[in-house]
Amino acid sequence: MELSGYLADVAADVDLAIHRHFGNPYGELAKASAHLLTAGGKRLRPAMLFLAADSVKRGSAFDLMPAALAVELIHSFTLIHDDIMDQDAERRGVPTVHTLWDEPTAILAGDVLYAQAFEFLCRTPAPDNARVRAVSLLARTCAEICDGQHLDMSFEAKEEVSEVEYLEMVRKKTGSLYAASASMGAILAGGKPMQADALYQFGLTTGIAFQIQDDLIDLTVPSSVSGKDRGSDLREGKKTLIAIRAHEKGIDLPRGNLSEEEVDRVVKDLEKAGIIADVRETAERILGTGKACLGVIPESPEKELLISLGDHFLARGS
Amino acid sequence: MELSGYLADVAADVDLAIHRHFGNPYGELAKASAHLLTAGGKRLRPAMLFLAADSVKRGSAFDLMPAALAVELIHSFTLIHDDIMDQDAERRGVPTVHTLWDEPTAILAGDVLYAQAFEFLCRTPAPDNARVRAVSLLARTCAEICDGQHLDMSFEAKEEVSEVEYLEMVRKKTGSLYAASASMGAILAGGKPMQADALYQFGLTTGIAFQIQDDLIDLTVPSSVSGKDRGSDLREGKKTLIAIRAHEKGIDLPRGNLSEEEVDRVVKDLEKAGIIADVRETAERILGTGKACLGVIPESPEKELLISLGDHFLARGS
Repeated sequence: MELSGYLADVAADVDLAIHRHFGNPYGELAKASAHLLTAGGKRLRPAMLFLAADSVKRGSAFDLMPAALAVELIHSFTLIHDDIMDQDAERRGVPTVHTLWDEPTAILAGDVLYAQAFEFLCRTPAPDNARVRAVSLLARTCAEICDGQHLDMSFEAKEEVSEVEYLEMVRKKTGSLYAASASMGAILAGGKPMQADALYQFGLTTGIAFQIQDDLIDLTVPSSVSGKDRGSDLREGKKTLIAIRAHEKGIDLPRGNLSEEEVDRVVKDLEKAGIIADVRETAERILGTGKACLGVIPESPEKELLISLGDHFLARGS
Repeated sequence: MELSGYLADVAADVDLAIHRHFGNPYGELAKASAHLLTAGGKRLRPAMLFLAADSVKRGSAFDLMPAALAVELIHSFTLIHDDIMDQDAERRGVPTVHTLWDEPTAILAGDVLYAQAFEFLCRTPAPDNARVRAVSLLARTCAEICDGQHLDMSFEAKEEVSEVEYLEMVRKKTGSLYAASASMGAILAGGKPMQADALYQFGLTTGIAFQIQDDLIDLTVPSSVSGKDRGSDLREGKKTLIAIRAHEKGIDLPRGNLSEEEVDRVVKDLEKAGIIADVRETAERILGTGKACLGVIPESPEKELLISLGDHFLARGS
């Protein structure tokens, strides 16, 4: 099976489940909780969880929809709270929760999804010891995501951010939930601890690679293609890996509102200095260490799809 | 053993455990998370959990400190988020988290405690099936608390609130966490489902009685005794059970800043109309239904303490 078809199937299944549970919300708080969740999304974390489960035991993914919803709910909760903190007005083409309702309701809407994620996880048909391990892992992951978001915010006030600090932030903010998704899939499907650990590492590196690629897309892909606002990281003076590497080489990136031509010039300078290629290589190298961990997973079409999913994260926008 | 001595012992034990885990926070986010938690508190929910555990199986409470911390962390997380929503500047005699840091950090500080509560719960030494049930119950409870807080906020905008609506709000916002504490104690100690359900009902009614008594204390106990700002519910026009009953009898309570004498006059009017006594009786009646559920719990000193704890909630301030 091809990855694109697989991802489309997963997204359709997850959307259906989300619609069943959140499609008919009763009351304002339930509506606010459902708002972003039902507004779409690529459902990549559920796909990671399903593929990890099937790669340790074929056919096991079928039962794990509640766990897949759990990671998607956690993702949605973090987006709602992040949007408040970052004062963002739009997400996935719809107004953010605190914009449509208000901040108190948005805080609560996130808190409700947070709780429901653990409820869904407990409802997953799996042995009790696996469920306890999965809950424990998801909880630790949530604390890490908060830490990552806090680091990200703290970078704004910092003059200089090192590559190590950047990678720690990305690992926690983006990597950890992909890692947990893969590992939970393995745990709940009855995989060996060694397999769950390997899939954790793989998920972690895909998440980090995903974020680095996101930073590259922000610079190199026209808004019309990416659907995002090109150059927004430059405008906000974000400390991305690209900005950190550029700073090291004495290239100071311009800030503020830049025209398409100005962004093109920045990209040209970065390409000439070898930074774009370097950063891309770093993402590939990181993902490579994750793939190398998959030796403990037997060969199967699902494992191939899992590797394709990692590659897909890096191929986006190119 | 007397209740006051028991509660003091529990508070000392819980404070020690909190100090061990949160007394030496590393980084701003950890400091913000620990701030309110380490600022004291009566630790009544842990006491409820321990007594419920010991009442179904004597000696079982000893192992349940991680679960007791879990309910205390959830309590602390809700306070941090509530303080943001209500824009309160002080709590437990110290500035609130969003006042000392900022709102984004306070949102994250609450989110971190939320996660750590589930981590602690998973670490409780108890059979896996009991831990899954406890996690599931705590998660459902968190969703209810959010619902209760949302109802409470929605009352501000409402002209009229019914007694049924008020009781639903209090049940969710305050009752549910006491209920979960008692029930989790029973579940983790290996109590029968029937016992866990009975303790849930008992905890629920103590929490509701606690809140009604809080409303009475706000009116009838001098600030110098309660340590709270007397008449604050009148000033904010809170829809308490007292206000609802007064409204029904055609007594419209004054709003705004009232002197001690003016509050005294309100109380005298409410007493004359029988409302104070009525409301107190309602709290006693509700608690009575909870006590009646305890028939399935064998007689023991711990059961006696549990009942005393309920009575204590109602005796406060009188």
